[in-house]
Amino acid sequence: MNSIGLIKFLTSNMLTDFICSFFLRMLEFVHIQKTTKNIVNLKEITKPIHGDLNCVDKVIKSHLSSDIPVINQISTYILNSGGKKMRPIFHLLLAGLDGEITESNHDVASIIEFIHTATLLHDDVVDQSTKRRNIQTANAVFGNSASILVGDFLYSRSFQMMVKIDNMNVMKVLADATNKISEGEVLQLINSHNPQINESQYFEVIEFKTAKLFEACGKIAAIINKKDQNQVELYSTIGKHFGIIFQLADDILDYSGNSNEIGKNIGDDLREGKVTLPLILTIKMSNSKDRGILTNAIKTGDINYLPSIVSLIKKSGAIDEIKEIANQHLNKIETLLDGNHNKKYQDSLLKLARFSLLRSV
Amino acid sequence: MNSIGLIKFLTSNMLTDFICSFFLRMLEFVHIQKTTKNIVNLKEITKPIHGDLNCVDKVIKSHLSSDIPVINQISTYILNSGGKKMRPIFHLLLAGLDGEITESNHDVASIIEFIHTATLLHDDVVDQSTKRRNIQTANAVFGNSASILVGDFLYSRSFQMMVKIDNMNVMKVLADATNKISEGEVLQLINSHNPQINESQYFEVIEFKTAKLFEACGKIAAIINKKDQNQVELYSTIGKHFGIIFQLADDILDYSGNSNEIGKNIGDDLREGKVTLPLILTIKMSNSKDRGILTNAIKTGDINYLPSIVSLIKKSGAIDEIKEIANQHLNKIETLLDGNHNKKYQDSLLKLARFSLLRSV
Repeated sequence: MNSIGLIKFLTSNMLTDFICSFFLRMLEFVHIQKTTKNIVNLKEITKPIHGDLNCVDKVIKSHLSSDIPVINQISTYILNSGGKKMRPIFHLLLAGLDGEITESNHDVASIIEFIHTATLLHDDVVDQSTKRRNIQTANAVFGNSASILVGDFLYSRSFQMMVKIDNMNVMKVLADATNKISEGEVLQLINSHNPQINESQYFEVIEFKTAKLFEACGKIAAIINKKDQNQVELYSTIGKHFGIIFQLADDILDYSGNSNEIGKNIGDDLREGKVTLPLILTIKMSNSKDRGILTNAIKTGDINYLPSIVSLIKKSGAIDEIKEIANQHLNKIETLLDGNHNKKYQDSLLKLARFSLLRSV
Repeated sequence: MNSIGLIKFLTSNMLTDFICSFFLRMLEFVHIQKTTKNIVNLKEITKPIHGDLNCVDKVIKSHLSSDIPVINQISTYILNSGGKKMRPIFHLLLAGLDGEITESNHDVASIIEFIHTATLLHDDVVDQSTKRRNIQTANAVFGNSASILVGDFLYSRSFQMMVKIDNMNVMKVLADATNKISEGEVLQLINSHNPQINESQYFEVIEFKTAKLFEACGKIAAIINKKDQNQVELYSTIGKHFGIIFQLADDILDYSGNSNEIGKNIGDDLREGKVTLPLILTIKMSNSKDRGILTNAIKTGDINYLPSIVSLIKKSGAIDEIKEIANQHLNKIETLLDGNHNKKYQDSLLKLARFSLLRSV
């Protein structure tokens, strides 16, 4: 049991909910301060794989070649648009955790970034987004049609690259993940503008649309290093928790960051009718008048509701609750990573998980 | 040299262009009448693979399952919307030409239909089409977003099915084909509304967007039957000619069929600014006034130009010229198929090629 859990247990019968919550927030603050010290920036986290990330950049560049200039143009635009390459980093760190990082890992990391980029291109069309990573989205610059087709190009290019790796297990994991991602995106679309969506439906969506690719990053790290099924499962589970933290942080940021910090337009989720956890929890904790405002905002996606919604979310304490959920996933990663591993990769993985969470603080 | 070629040669120095053209059209008419007799309908052509097509239907149905109802709904909608399954038929007939049709061929035929369907879903969004196969397009019924995402679902599902076949060569051919298709679609987009596009640019597009998947159908038929590289190339080349005939016929129909016959809205190509061969050849053969009309129509995509454009195309003789080009590809298929094969498959393949061409008569 970690310190937060212990205090929770000790105080549950002794103090009012208010005092308990006060203590927990204080502790969380200390915890965040402590972990913040461990985090300088992504550059420090990725120190053990600095050379590998350069190799990944080269692989990506060398596979972007098409005889059709606009394909190179759009692919390069989005791949160079300041993405943090979280998935390649995660895969490489896991590959180094109990084994050697090889050329195959550079290829896999690039393939995963291609798949991720293809989903971004299609998502931005679906969501009619205009800003991502502080620059205009590809669809805003090049149009929806080009974004759809270049997304298809990147998808199929990633499968061409998988053929080169020549490992049917890797192929299976990535084909399955890609399929689940599309299911997650469809689910999200069906759930949109529906204020009845609950937590379990929300987690179903984010496990599909976000966590599956992190799971795949983990699974393949173990498969390529010829680890046994237990290790494949272990890395996959770490990936799942990692993906959930990542998406929780993203969904918090949409209501608590500022446009420059998060790199996209504030309130995009609301506009698109995405029923994310901040809204779900706030609805649960609100009185009927506030629930009416939230329900209307979700149904209409009217961005004019944003200031009221942000204030209701703030008042409800939903963000703290989500951070606590994310912290539980972080604790699970810490437990799963506890053991005899290559220490520098182990440390970086933990820092990366904390970094993902602390984006939302 | 075939009879048309022979007459061309004999008459080139003897008669005026007009008389030559008259003879050629007469001969072509006789040729078409002759071949029409050989064609009853697709049901007769596909007689040797009737049972196999039922198996393909079963494979398709069994792989459409998703826990998300709307995915099944859209996939089933488009897969049951009266497509002729030309690619599965072509693959199965080639598989039987010099070998046995096995379960793997049913899988491949289904995979290819999935890939084709995914491209249709995305193309209809890109082209903003509203009618295909005489019913509303999926994007018109379910919206663009759902069509994009279900297209991604079918793409990735097809790669999941490829994993089951467990043959990296098959995987490579399909990944390469899918990538080329997306390049072809992007090229078509870039070329749109540009009256300067010439024949060679047009053929580049259709070889990528249409012929590549027929080539893949052929290649894989040979690969699965463990044929040598020569046979792989032979089947691939037959596929290429087949794909070109198919697309030429399609592009003729857009200006000469009626909406019910072709199953889509007449003039869709013009509206979308697609610079197809009927337009390219008519521009080449027109006087400067008519060229002006054609150029404006391509630039604006204004559907009000359609009656004038149809009349100019008719006057120019472009359709006959395209039919002659398609006939040359048909002759090549006849030559390539000449040899000691399983006769019923050989006959059906030839009938299928003629059927594809005669759609446009």
